[in-house]
Amino acid sequence: MVTRIHPEPAQPALPADLAALSAITSDAYRQVKDRLREVITRLGEEGRLRLPSEAELSTALGVSRATLRSALQSLQKEGRIRRLHGHGTFINRHALGLGANLAEAGAFMDLLTEAGHQATVSTADQRVVPLDADMAASLEIPAGEQALRIERVFAASGAPAVHSVDHFPVRLLGDDPRALEATQSTFEFVERHIGPPVCYSVAEVRPVLPPAEVATALKIPATQPLLRLRHTHIQADEQPVAVTVVHVNDEYLRFSVIRTYLDE
Amino acid sequence: MVTRIHPEPAQPALPADLAALSAITSDAYRQVKDRLREVITRLGEEGRLRLPSEAELSTALGVSRATLRSALQSLQKEGRIRRLHGHGTFINRHALGLGANLAEAGAFMDLLTEAGHQATVSTADQRVVPLDADMAASLEIPAGEQALRIERVFAASGAPAVHSVDHFPVRLLGDDPRALEATQSTFEFVERHIGPPVCYSVAEVRPVLPPAEVATALKIPATQPLLRLRHTHIQADEQPVAVTVVHVNDEYLRFSVIRTYLDE
Repeated sequence: MVTRIHPEPAQPALPADLAALSAITSDAYRQVKDRLREVITRLGEEGRLRLPSEAELSTALGVSRATLRSALQSLQKEGRIRRLHGHGTFINRHALGLGANLAEAGAFMDLLTEAGHQATVSTADQRVVPLDADMAASLEIPAGEQALRIERVFAASGAPAVHSVDHFPVRLLGDDPRALEATQSTFEFVERHIGPPVCYSVAEVRPVLPPAEVATALKIPATQPLLRLRHTHIQADEQPVAVTVVHVNDEYLRFSVIRTYLDE
Repeated sequence: MVTRIHPEPAQPALPADLAALSAITSDAYRQVKDRLREVITRLGEEGRLRLPSEAELSTALGVSRATLRSALQSLQKEGRIRRLHGHGTFINRHALGLGANLAEAGAFMDLLTEAGHQATVSTADQRVVPLDADMAASLEIPAGEQALRIERVFAASGAPAVHSVDHFPVRLLGDDPRALEATQSTFEFVERHIGPPVCYSVAEVRPVLPPAEVATALKIPATQPLLRLRHTHIQADEQPVAVTVVHVNDEYLRFSVIRTYLDE
């Protein structure tokens, strides 16, 4: 339903069915992951650090072993659990109750809600602009090409907390490039309007003083440092589909990351 | 050789042999991971995104399949590669050439070297201090207990770039609590003087203006935002062993993180 104009592939192709496969599995998979997170939180609160067996979990959650295993792998990647061959799967106790995990997928509406706020979002601006050289390089298209630019502000119980600007190349978009609903995450937008979902994002993490328009939007002084995350979102076929630059006021949303060293 | 006084275990025990197992495998494992990183970089530069099979890799690197598989899992966790069942292992092309990865283990000497600097380090201060409430809570011991505090400055080609303060509880240390060599990483110190290596660290990531002593040590104005990482280091038996607070001048060392969404 969306006409997609592919740029010439710069790389040897990955298996062609991958993107389709991802699209089919992503929803069920995310639901299972959310439910596993709840299980982990509950067990952790009870001081029980060992997860039930895969057989028990797949029965309890009503999902296949394959889906369950994918979700467990992903939680292990994020540092929430560790799997010890011959011993079972254990909760990383000190990762319990952590705030937003930098290595996790996260829509800001969800992250703010999980941080205990009432999350709202408004679209500040939505238009088509030419890409600057830096952004175009990340998207692997010529500078000056058009992109849909979406500027949003996410609020925590009414206070502006996160300023976000997405750029989607117009060449990847179809008929109506202005169809984003404010509450839709960047990932949902990609799945709905571009096609195969985001597979991974590379995010540069920097401490910055706010640019003037961000200070205004977040109602903070120009001297307050913010966390700036500049994401390049990549599909399974290594196609970059969007750049998202986010400024976070960490009074409302604090990130952590779990660094793991040993894998048994 | 080091007398270790365990605090009372707060949690149900993990398998008792785990820590020993980690200590034995960690060195070989880290070497394999470093060599795999080189392989990935070289293949990536040649535009080849598919890794050789496990059999070929384990022969080429001269390591067991089990060790190889652990190292591959860890690189997948960090977002460097992805393993697709039935298709093989692929390099995440857009993660190539990334700077320091926030989700990876990293000694600052290595991180600065990899960023192209000549890395040096000096110990600014080393002494025993009482723990404040916040730090004691992270280490799960009473406030006021003594800790070895080590303050260091890592320089990039002569310019101070990273300010680091470790706190190790004295109750976990043995005979000579002042034995840290400046070039020794926090992780090496734990392995040598406390015992089982660090299994994972929980790091809070914040943008901050520098405290006065950090601004002085890094020779920067009080208005320059820094990345502040506050780590709690955890052993395999869930014992917290150290807190490390680091301030990074990101002119010299820039962090990224790879956020992964789908696991096939």
